[in-house]
Amino acid sequence: MKVSELPTPAFIIDLDRLQFNIGLMADIAKKNGIKLRPHIKTHKMPVIAKMQMDMGAVGVTCAKVTEAEVMVRAGIKDILIAFPVVGDYQVRKIGELIDAGCTITVAFDSAYGAQKLHKQAIRKGKMIDLYMIINTGADRDGVKPGEAALHLAEQTRDLSNVRIKGIMTHEGHVYKANDLNQLREIVLNAGHQMVETAALLRMHGYPVQEVSMGSTPACRAGIAAKGITEWRPGTYVFNDIHELVATPIEECALSILATVVSHPAPNRFILDSGSKTLTADKPGGTKGYGYIKQAPNAVIDRLSEEHGVVLSEQEDALSIGQRVEIIPNHVCPTINLTNNVYVTRGENVIEEWKVEARGKIQ
Amino acid sequence: MKVSELPTPAFIIDLDRLQFNIGLMADIAKKNGIKLRPHIKTHKMPVIAKMQMDMGAVGVTCAKVTEAEVMVRAGIKDILIAFPVVGDYQVRKIGELIDAGCTITVAFDSAYGAQKLHKQAIRKGKMIDLYMIINTGADRDGVKPGEAALHLAEQTRDLSNVRIKGIMTHEGHVYKANDLNQLREIVLNAGHQMVETAALLRMHGYPVQEVSMGSTPACRAGIAAKGITEWRPGTYVFNDIHELVATPIEECALSILATVVSHPAPNRFILDSGSKTLTADKPGGTKGYGYIKQAPNAVIDRLSEEHGVVLSEQEDALSIGQRVEIIPNHVCPTINLTNNVYVTRGENVIEEWKVEARGKIQ
Repeated sequence: MKVSELPTPAFIIDLDRLQFNIGLMADIAKKNGIKLRPHIKTHKMPVIAKMQMDMGAVGVTCAKVTEAEVMVRAGIKDILIAFPVVGDYQVRKIGELIDAGCTITVAFDSAYGAQKLHKQAIRKGKMIDLYMIINTGADRDGVKPGEAALHLAEQTRDLSNVRIKGIMTHEGHVYKANDLNQLREIVLNAGHQMVETAALLRMHGYPVQEVSMGSTPACRAGIAAKGITEWRPGTYVFNDIHELVATPIEECALSILATVVSHPAPNRFILDSGSKTLTADKPGGTKGYGYIKQAPNAVIDRLSEEHGVVLSEQEDALSIGQRVEIIPNHVCPTINLTNNVYVTRGENVIEEWKVEARGKIQ
Repeated sequence: MKVSELPTPAFIIDLDRLQFNIGLMADIAKKNGIKLRPHIKTHKMPVIAKMQMDMGAVGVTCAKVTEAEVMVRAGIKDILIAFPVVGDYQVRKIGELIDAGCTITVAFDSAYGAQKLHKQAIRKGKMIDLYMIINTGADRDGVKPGEAALHLAEQTRDLSNVRIKGIMTHEGHVYKANDLNQLREIVLNAGHQMVETAALLRMHGYPVQEVSMGSTPACRAGIAAKGITEWRPGTYVFNDIHELVATPIEECALSILATVVSHPAPNRFILDSGSKTLTADKPGGTKGYGYIKQAPNAVIDRLSEEHGVVLSEQEDALSIGQRVEIIPNHVCPTINLTNNVYVTRGENVIEEWKVEARGKIQ
């Protein structure tokens, strides 16, 4: 099938670009002596996770146990659950994955979480490895570096069946950086907090092996403090508008094929892709709700569920019936909206992949 | 099963409240002598569409042909596609639905769209009924009322196999209203534009039978200009925070069950429901990303995909492990994120329904 024959909206992936992106990140990690444990949240597809493993990833990162189950079914068995797990359902699923012979590491940032996992580990007669979540400035979950981290570690000292294998942070505040210098400053600052916290914990008898950081822009730019052992980037497989500080737009591998369905006013065009396709995500630094390759100066100004309202000063920027490709602002939640993607090489659709971990919210 | 046993995040629907909402809107429409053709975008479930039909709806409204197919499979055969259809795939699907004996009416707002449908109608040897989309102020798709509408109608005069059965508007700008007086003013103004446009078209020989309007707040408040024949509300089945101008919060039938997974700072709590569950939708007039029933003064301040970051001045507003119910800002895109919903009566889960038209973007 040809790309021009696909019904729209459709999610299309440039296979060569995808492979390039996976290989590039593997190279950068290798050059820096850092293990790669990519986050599957971006693609949600075992087929891509396997490509990452084939190019040297040591395992994968998932947010939810239901995502981990999808990866395990595809044969990937070394998984970090990088989310503070506290629910009975999730703890039970982790037990089942351990029973199935998987290497499961689980994030925690409270004594409550550590105790729940400890009880499950006792039930299974196994040891569960933990990563402590450290807040290096994103102010989401996680304990503060240094003394606060040590205090939480002390609360796990008597829990015989869990051990703190590593510490992790998601330095989400890198997305505030406007240029590479700011990016470097934020990443190195976060990295030093991590390395110092790991040293403090080791000094008190916790054998922290892994010091894990996460964001794509930091890894893509090859920025890492000495002592960081692991990277967990997600977005780099596809990239998106939100990544442009560290990534050229040519490295975006996924776009939404859409059709112009209406031209109701000289400066207004309507696309058949609204928030049900592009998401309402509009992170800082993005203009509109995506970048239209065929009309780079036009702005996707508003979305309703099925309508994308494009404004342009040029009356002939687009025309009814025309098909366009949109690079989304934030590709991870966007791909969560589709059941399948079309894999392309030039004008040809060469494969169709199912987004198997889509909608796995538990 | 008990609600307390559900894994989180989970979508729960209060069945009694759902039935009340469906019955209430049916009553209001009947009292006003207006046909009800509810939009299925809110629930995306045949089981609820059938409840609406059983309580007197004349048919349903869909945005996409793939949604219509789901409804047809469930036995609902009178469907308005309220979206300007221009794509080959969509036009072909409409032909197939007509072949299957369905009564399909299709929206248009361009000569291009009318001609495409006309060609398909000729191919099938049938007549296709159209609704012309009128822009009464939302500035999305649609032609202007009055002369512009007449001009577009004239461009369809020679198309033997389509006829303008009605005109429709989505008065989306009602959501700018801060109170019932403003709501009334916007709705009546839009309604008068519609009624006058219908009269103008009829005067020129177009037998416009239906004059169709849409939004839940207008219908819930029972506001309609004389001459309006049809309503297409969607959200009223569940309601949400965005509907509160015309709808008491007690009439919200759907909520997201979530768990507090972390309490990393005195004023900050983390939920296991982020933008992959709640959506990033934050329409005007909403505070945060949803309303937490158990902590009405707390604000869901930020979302990442799996994390909801709640801020509260009260340190004991929530606690790790606690389960909460969240009423979403905008329920329609939210329900598009889940594969299934749990139907509850009090503390009991009495059914599980599949969101069959979820992800039907084409």
